[in-house]
Amino acid sequence: MEKIKNFKLTVSYDGTSFRGWQKLPGTDSETVQGRLEKVASLLSGCETAVNGAGRTDAGVHAIGQVANVRLPGELSCTEIRDYFNRYLPETVRVVSCEEASDRFHARLSAKAKTYEYYFTTGEKPPVFERKYVYRHPSAVDVSKMDDACRLLIGTHDMKGFATAVPKKKSSVRTITGASVSSADGFGLFGHGNAPDVYVIKLTGDGFLYNEVRIIAGTLLEIGSGAMDASNITKALETGDRHFAGFTAPASGLFLAKVYY
Amino acid sequence: MEKIKNFKLTVSYDGTSFRGWQKLPGTDSETVQGRLEKVASLLSGCETAVNGAGRTDAGVHAIGQVANVRLPGELSCTEIRDYFNRYLPETVRVVSCEEASDRFHARLSAKAKTYEYYFTTGEKPPVFERKYVYRHPSAVDVSKMDDACRLLIGTHDMKGFATAVPKKKSSVRTITGASVSSADGFGLFGHGNAPDVYVIKLTGDGFLYNEVRIIAGTLLEIGSGAMDASNITKALETGDRHFAGFTAPASGLFLAKVYY
Repeated sequence: MEKIKNFKLTVSYDGTSFRGWQKLPGTDSETVQGRLEKVASLLSGCETAVNGAGRTDAGVHAIGQVANVRLPGELSCTEIRDYFNRYLPETVRVVSCEEASDRFHARLSAKAKTYEYYFTTGEKPPVFERKYVYRHPSAVDVSKMDDACRLLIGTHDMKGFATAVPKKKSSVRTITGASVSSADGFGLFGHGNAPDVYVIKLTGDGFLYNEVRIIAGTLLEIGSGAMDASNITKALETGDRHFAGFTAPASGLFLAKVYY
Repeated sequence: MEKIKNFKLTVSYDGTSFRGWQKLPGTDSETVQGRLEKVASLLSGCETAVNGAGRTDAGVHAIGQVANVRLPGELSCTEIRDYFNRYLPETVRVVSCEEASDRFHARLSAKAKTYEYYFTTGEKPPVFERKYVYRHPSAVDVSKMDDACRLLIGTHDMKGFATAVPKKKSSVRTITGASVSSADGFGLFGHGNAPDVYVIKLTGDGFLYNEVRIIAGTLLEIGSGAMDASNITKALETGDRHFAGFTAPASGLFLAKVYY
């Protein structure tokens, strides 16, 4: 019997036309996981699971999603990466492949994740980056948004910032990093090409369903003056979704990095 | 009678789904010029021409196309820019608007233009930049391509590098800058995100139809070893298109800058 090895894949994808990461019955080709599992199964000759670190929602992108997959051990990392890239659509790319310990599981072993949310308040998004930036209709005070981020740091019950709350599982999560700043370096041609673009960065041990997008919406409403920063504290203390802001669109959101 | 002023517009566009810059009978909305003239006419209340510096071909993009347009003098530059951006599709953006002298003509006053051609030879283009990078099927020697660029510098009859040669007009043009290098800084998230991407930069007083794309194709064939660098000299000396390489696809090409 041939030896099976566990491989860690770093994957980037343009989520625009996907129904999200997670495989759905009957729509494998419309999900990133479905696409990856199809190629993995071709490669191994039997049905093969690909476990992702984060279940990104429909329309959400990834710079550095991480997944693990068990494949025949005689394949080299370069062969695996190239095989995936040959058979995946142009919207999904395996950036790197490395051998992992047998116990490594992309989701269960993850210690933290960073999400980035890009937005602009300019009269129009920059053309080459338009699908990856949310255009907020009103002007915002970015430093006010950044200040409000401090209220998010720490361990809290996040259910006030989620759409669907797990019934039997804990909704307590820890946010270790939160900031809003100018998105320097963002843009097809680097710095300066896409002015007026800002980024909300959130790092934490886990995020509930829609949590990052609801936090982004809340910060934008605080920035535009539509909402007071104290709403964050209220939503954290009461767990009441009504204190938080709108759910910002998926298109501006990227799973940037997973930490192990 | 109200005063009319001449305005200089700097325009960026994603050429992917346009039939090029130049207005075509019956397909105004499929050309960049057609789109701009429609908005200019709305703004001025009468049919208004928009003159572009370069007639980019179908599928070719622009970072800094320049155009001039005559509009009622009571409008401010900010009003004009914002009006255009409100009514243009998301693929076209007026980056800036400034008042120009009455004699300024975007094409006739232009002294030089820089075009940039982005390509990769990696197994797959990076996902977020995929529409703006041509993937060449074989590996290339970039420094060999850069060396070959020196043969292009100077004043030459360029008809060997053109698809349609002007019959009564001169096909002599001057290239002042030509280089091939790593496209540092390119990529949605700046340097490092889109590895293995290179850029061909060409600056000259004017380019014939398809000239930049044929030069790009020739350089790529020289880089892959399919063609000798001496072919450039032969094409320049004889004007014979057969010595030059293939016409590289439009998607990698950008009109980067126009000099006055």
